[in-house]
Amino acid sequence: MNFKITKRHFYQALTVVSRAISANSPIPSLSGIKIDVMENEICLTGSDSDVSIKKSIKNTENDLIFEVHETGSIVIEAKYIIEIVRKIDANEIEVEIIDGSLTKFSGLSTEFKINGMKSTEYPMIDFSKPNNTFLIDANLLLKIIMQTTFATSDRETRPVLTGVNFNCNDYVLECVATDSYRLAKKVVRLKESNNFNITIPAKSLSEIAKSIDKDEEIEISVSDKKVQFLVGETLIQTRLIDGTYPETSRLIPTEFVSEFSLDSRDILSAIDRASFIKNDGISIIRLNANKNEIIISSKSQEVGSSTEKINNFSYEGESIEISFSGKYVYESIRALDATEIKICFSGEMKPFIIKNKNDDSIIQLVLPVRTYS
Amino acid sequence: MNFKITKRHFYQALTVVSRAISANSPIPSLSGIKIDVMENEICLTGSDSDVSIKKSIKNTENDLIFEVHETGSIVIEAKYIIEIVRKIDANEIEVEIIDGSLTKFSGLSTEFKINGMKSTEYPMIDFSKPNNTFLIDANLLLKIIMQTTFATSDRETRPVLTGVNFNCNDYVLECVATDSYRLAKKVVRLKESNNFNITIPAKSLSEIAKSIDKDEEIEISVSDKKVQFLVGETLIQTRLIDGTYPETSRLIPTEFVSEFSLDSRDILSAIDRASFIKNDGISIIRLNANKNEIIISSKSQEVGSSTEKINNFSYEGESIEISFSGKYVYESIRALDATEIKICFSGEMKPFIIKNKNDDSIIQLVLPVRTYS
Repeated sequence: MNFKITKRHFYQALTVVSRAISANSPIPSLSGIKIDVMENEICLTGSDSDVSIKKSIKNTENDLIFEVHETGSIVIEAKYIIEIVRKIDANEIEVEIIDGSLTKFSGLSTEFKINGMKSTEYPMIDFSKPNNTFLIDANLLLKIIMQTTFATSDRETRPVLTGVNFNCNDYVLECVATDSYRLAKKVVRLKESNNFNITIPAKSLSEIAKSIDKDEEIEISVSDKKVQFLVGETLIQTRLIDGTYPETSRLIPTEFVSEFSLDSRDILSAIDRASFIKNDGISIIRLNANKNEIIISSKSQEVGSSTEKINNFSYEGESIEISFSGKYVYESIRALDATEIKICFSGEMKPFIIKNKNDDSIIQLVLPVRTYS
Repeated sequence: MNFKITKRHFYQALTVVSRAISANSPIPSLSGIKIDVMENEICLTGSDSDVSIKKSIKNTENDLIFEVHETGSIVIEAKYIIEIVRKIDANEIEVEIIDGSLTKFSGLSTEFKINGMKSTEYPMIDFSKPNNTFLIDANLLLKIIMQTTFATSDRETRPVLTGVNFNCNDYVLECVATDSYRLAKKVVRLKESNNFNITIPAKSLSEIAKSIDKDEEIEISVSDKKVQFLVGETLIQTRLIDGTYPETSRLIPTEFVSEFSLDSRDILSAIDRASFIKNDGISIIRLNANKNEIIISSKSQEVGSSTEKINNFSYEGESIEISFSGKYVYESIRALDATEIKICFSGEMKPFIIKNKNDDSIIQLVLPVRTYS
């Protein structure tokens, strides 16, 4: 293996695939990046066996990125190769296997010889493309991920809740995340009809979100074992979570006793201020609301108390007194990405929903907390 | 106690005194900031019993910062008061003790009632001013701190080495830090004659450096127990380290077998590149230098090796082969704050010194490392 490549392109591609690599992989070679050098293509792979990222580098007519002198492949420890390529004193780097798996990286006056691993030690990753394929707008996918993923569970007791459920029936894609105390549901319309029901690990979705940086269409390919996202020349593949996702649609109330609308920044900063008063590390916020006033308060035996009046709002229905997790409501409202929000209550101990006044595609639901004060 | 104060001034003053507070103080009240409200002055104090910072806030003719309705004092948990003042929805904050030590902070629509501590629970801190006083330029003090403190020891086995020794004889102030593997020595001339020999904890000096942000003169007052730095309206006081500081002047070689000069950026980036190759977490750099070439290299059985040629330099004397800690030499060169540096060797296993070519006031010394390769 022997090739020359521009530092900028190489570094950028290494950074992308390194996102899949986890620091403590049980398989030693997975701490490395696999480099496959072919006649007309250089392919980089990073993986933690759950998520795998493959990036293909190709020369174009206008842009000569690399020059291959000899094909071959090698695996180099991710943290070393990234450090070398970032710091090397040249715009072009020459990479060459000089002895077994000892690989030389040369800049202008600098030369590194790094012990690599043979690519035969790297696990075989099946990047074959599932048949069930559709296109989605990058910004829409990003929005789905941002508006739902935060509501997944971080406990392994019910593995299926650590992912976001993507349930597609014909043209309608419903994306649901819940940790059983809160729920986020995004409904979007696809351009093509499709049918699948899969649960994607939250961690994988966060990695995918980081890899999307362009206004482009993303090709998603689904099977019952894995899902692939093709973003430009980057292929991100993740395993799915086994198990049936719970039926959640009946949990979302449709009849309400009271509701109010207000500026999202007003309530976000009020909750933020009240939230530093914690009980055992958790901030419970109390809301007292009626036609005349909305009061946000918090209290702790140890620290003290806070009260705050919200001044601008419109209110309909009964007065309400309800307590909730400051963190959950804060995250829900922030995920709505709204100027004005609407909060709808169906009773004092019942789940309430938070909506973007100008976007019906997303619903946030939060369970209240019982307090004895 | 009852006063009104502008948020901006209050927040800035709270931030300054909070720097002295450590998270895990054995004395509960030291996790708080003490507020003393007098007729014409508000005084804030933060301390971890080693370092204490007192900040006085006074109204000026042009700037009405506060209004006192009732004098008094209280101690409020630092992290709470800083959070409240930072986030409160008003430009003016009203602070009032409403019941024992329960203290109310009011903004526009927000109100916090926080459990404080009585100021009688706060340790008495003696802020009396030692007699031995002199003035120093803020930028010069900052430079002394930056060029020496990094070389102090972080081990408590020889406590005196965890501080910087300030030894003043007449007009000459010598500041020395060493961890016994490297040494930094800064010599400056004072405007007034003085005599003292004290060792200031490195941690205190770092806090002092953070509190200096103006081109002004700082008043330093020294006794054999403590040292005070008066920076504007902020008084920073620290205990000293007991014990006799070792005699270091005979350690610094004065005769050399070879020396070379080069651009500090060239050698810094060469050492930086070579340093990622570590043995047991430590990067040992090898230098091979003679009239014709300077080679920086590093090697590890596990990772691999690096070699780099330095292109621009001037060299005098014998050729030399020497190994050293990459971290130590890197930090020493960076502390010199020089465009061009000079490295002088008195033998292959002898300490070598690194100097700023254009500033004789600072000397860095590093001990070589024995290698068997």
